[in-house]
Amino acid sequence: MKSSIEQLSKSKCKYLKALRHKKYRRRENLFIAEGMNALEASLRSSLYPLVEVVLNGRQAEILRGCPLAARLPETIPVMEASDRDIASLSTEETPQGILAVCRMRFFDSSDLPIRPNGPLLYIDGVSDPGNLGTVIRTAAWFGLTEILLAPESVDPFNGKVLRASAGSFFTVKIIPIEQAELKAFAAHKRLPMIATAPTGGNAPSSLRGNKPSILILGHEVAGVTADLLASADSLVSIPGSGAVESLNLAAAASIILYEMTQSG
Amino acid sequence: MKSSIEQLSKSKCKYLKALRHKKYRRRENLFIAEGMNALEASLRSSLYPLVEVVLNGRQAEILRGCPLAARLPETIPVMEASDRDIASLSTEETPQGILAVCRMRFFDSSDLPIRPNGPLLYIDGVSDPGNLGTVIRTAAWFGLTEILLAPESVDPFNGKVLRASAGSFFTVKIIPIEQAELKAFAAHKRLPMIATAPTGGNAPSSLRGNKPSILILGHEVAGVTADLLASADSLVSIPGSGAVESLNLAAAASIILYEMTQSG
Repeated sequence: MKSSIEQLSKSKCKYLKALRHKKYRRRENLFIAEGMNALEASLRSSLYPLVEVVLNGRQAEILRGCPLAARLPETIPVMEASDRDIASLSTEETPQGILAVCRMRFFDSSDLPIRPNGPLLYIDGVSDPGNLGTVIRTAAWFGLTEILLAPESVDPFNGKVLRASAGSFFTVKIIPIEQAELKAFAAHKRLPMIATAPTGGNAPSSLRGNKPSILILGHEVAGVTADLLASADSLVSIPGSGAVESLNLAAAASIILYEMTQSG
Repeated sequence: MKSSIEQLSKSKCKYLKALRHKKYRRRENLFIAEGMNALEASLRSSLYPLVEVVLNGRQAEILRGCPLAARLPETIPVMEASDRDIASLSTEETPQGILAVCRMRFFDSSDLPIRPNGPLLYIDGVSDPGNLGTVIRTAAWFGLTEILLAPESVDPFNGKVLRASAGSFFTVKIIPIEQAELKAFAAHKRLPMIATAPTGGNAPSSLRGNKPSILILGHEVAGVTADLLASADSLVSIPGSGAVESLNLAAAASIILYEMTQSG
């Protein structure tokens, strides 16, 4: 960690504040992850490198006492800011007082695994950032290292996605990919496409065994798009009591990914 | 449905606005659920009855054209309000324009099932309303009709809990119950207490068979309290890749409840 901590200038604060908007994140190729855990995850990440750190006085003191400080390269600027400025940069209701400014990176179909050795996940549209973050966290828990995402989904670099992912974001490649390209990839690699459906599909237990395949999760409201549904090799549904209409997207993802990654 | 729709008065609007706060919800014994689906769920509910409806002009028109209108008793007041007033009552970023004011009801240990015929769920503290709502939705999906909740948890009548529950809230009894009382209940009914733990517990698949038992979920950060952990008959953990520290509370609940409700 740099021994000297600069003060965050007004103009730099204004510049970083714009990163709360997708348009400016894209333009500057930067995003902000909040909290000490996110900072640690960004330092461990080979995917989305840490660029600089903004923190308040209290967090500066804590950081200096943390083993983490020793792993913070001298080349990374650390800037102190008032609680008011931190709040203006934060997307959280109760800001944690420490922000990791990280480099965005966009993966594309050239980053798809050449020889998948287990299930892949395609999210065919997701609106709620909390849902996307939770799905990323669950997928990472079960060892997935890529998340294939329909381009019309919520921006994965949205602060709420990062928060819900609880640091796991930094361990996965987020690969935006159109439905048509997904179909071509599946055909080329001979990967069965398994689409989630509210009812009428096979039981999740039929998918055990960590088999190379593509699980397609649908949008919270619209579900899996008609075209992908028609192209799917099979459907999977989670049997329920009938007391409620549907499961939450991230809950359904958790159950199916859990089964798919069980050994036979 | 009442043929005449009144205008929401300023004083009534102010009165209902206070229901965004837990203190006033308790005092007035009322809570607000938002959206047409919540209205429908409240009409079907024998637990939390609908008291009155507040909506904007557009939703009034939609409601009149809906089969739902015929099921809305004449005794339920329907009040029209401006978008501005609706927004002041709503806890959503983009209000849906229709609010169901419902009667709160508090269950207690006398409402615990006399002869449980499957797993029960005890949430040993939860802070995030979205997590609580999602757990309720998942539990209802798997046929649970009671949610046992540590009293220090987020208020279950919080608007964000209701929204995340997607209507399922109206199908379950939320039973606040202290840890000591839970232990006494478990002992009396000879129900094994199974506590979730990040690692070191049995596999969730060992719990299949819909057996009478109590699954204890821990708080997002603190986990299961030490006392309950020590009293538990067994632990359950979801094996993971090690890439992330933990699963989201609702994701873990989904996987374990899914396994517990599978037939052996």
